[in-house]
Amino acid sequence: DHYIICGIGRVGSNVAHELSATGRRCVILDEAMQNIDNYLDKHPEQLFLHGDATDNDLLIAAGIHRAKGVFAVAADDSKNLVISLSAKQLNPTVRVVARCHDVKNVEKTRRAGADEIVSPDFTGGLRLVSAMVRPQVVSFLDEMLKSDDNLRMEEITIPSALSGKPLAVLYHGNKDCVVLAVKHLGHWQFNPPAQHPVQGGDVLMVMTTPQGRSRVEELLAGVSND
Amino acid sequence: DHYIICGIGRVGSNVAHELSATGRRCVILDEAMQNIDNYLDKHPEQLFLHGDATDNDLLIAAGIHRAKGVFAVAADDSKNLVISLSAKQLNPTVRVVARCHDVKNVEKTRRAGADEIVSPDFTGGLRLVSAMVRPQVVSFLDEMLKSDDNLRMEEITIPSALSGKPLAVLYHGNKDCVVLAVKHLGHWQFNPPAQHPVQGGDVLMVMTTPQGRSRVEELLAGVSND
Ligand SMILES: [Ca+2]
Ligand SMILES: [Ca+2]
Repeated sequence: DHYIICGIGRVGSNVAHELSATGRRCVILDEAMQNIDNYLDKHPEQLFLHGDATDNDLLIAAGIHRAKGVFAVAADDSKNLVISLSAKQLNPTVRVVARCHDVKNVEKTRRAGADEIVSPDFTGGLRLVSAMVRPQVVSFLDEMLKSDDNLRMEEITIPSALSGKPLAVLYHGNKDCVVLAVKHLGHWQFNPPAQHPVQGGDVLMVMTTPQGRSRVEELLAGVSND
Repeated sequence: DHYIICGIGRVGSNVAHELSATGRRCVILDEAMQNIDNYLDKHPEQLFLHGDATDNDLLIAAGIHRAKGVFAVAADDSKNLVISLSAKQLNPTVRVVARCHDVKNVEKTRRAGADEIVSPDFTGGLRLVSAMVRPQVVSFLDEMLKSDDNLRMEEITIPSALSGKPLAVLYHGNKDCVVLAVKHLGHWQFNPPAQHPVQGGDVLMVMTTPQGRSRVEELLAGVSND
């Protein structure tokens, strides 16, 4: 249940730091010892392997067969595509998130097996524009993504036993849990009314406290046990 | 009321593209004609100036005195700091958003005058981690930032005439407007109750349709006219 980070440049370092800060174990891989050393300077206890992450043997040494996820965040898009392909071949259940510099490589990398693609240059561009024209929205979203405060966005998947029931069943009287949207068959419906019927597999996006979340989880566990 | 983009590399290109796509005028500046040509290939109608954006004369030629905002998105952090400083000296009311590669340059760039700093490598790292451990939240936030659908996040600033009134005054019966949070003196309070008293200058973060937004704006305009 660890994560493998392929490439420990500037983006990879931020990934490793965030995983460590949130109590998740990871191993870092890079063929440039200089990149590894730069990271070790600030995080001397970090597990690492020196070598080429497109090499199956290195991924196996990094524990790909029991890993929870692989970050393909090397500097080169082609390399990230090959890493995605190799990781999925060695362990089809591992989750792969890849970085693309160039948006024209996104589709190809997805076909190679990456579950999610992130393009920091593209996201960064959108974010710069938002910081210019909608600064408060950006500040709000930052707060929502930070995990250091009491209230944040969480996702809840509806068990099939609740199919057809209204949303109110789940969060009626639960003031610590606001349902922002429901995702049904890949489409987000925002601000659903209390009588909205949910279906098994629907995903609720809620804004909640840890207590509010616990109450919903207890409720869901109760339903599944019936 | 135009924007000046200093640096038209990968991030700057995404900024220019997003501004154009949302109907905002901009001029691009770069000292490398190759970067400008790459952008012009896809956007032949784009206004540009070839030269060094740290040079006051070039900023003046780009209309800094009547510009709405400056993006300091050159490849080099020092250059972005100098651009921020120059832009603010030439026009103290212009909004400056700067890019930093290295988070250690953030504070210095802010002191030089940048209103907001974005670090794509840092943001990209956080986003990669979210895509791994909270994929639905990322998909939801993407939807919230996209401007092509009916419902999205908007910010509303409370006029001083409403100080002390409960939130309910603003959105009671307005089903198209959900208040997610209130920012008071720099601090976000999430999920405020209907009786929460607002103060002049508070910012509401709402999820709303264009119609819902119009109703709130009419209400605010009515208050200011009293
Ligand atoms: Ca938060
Ligand atoms: Ca939207």
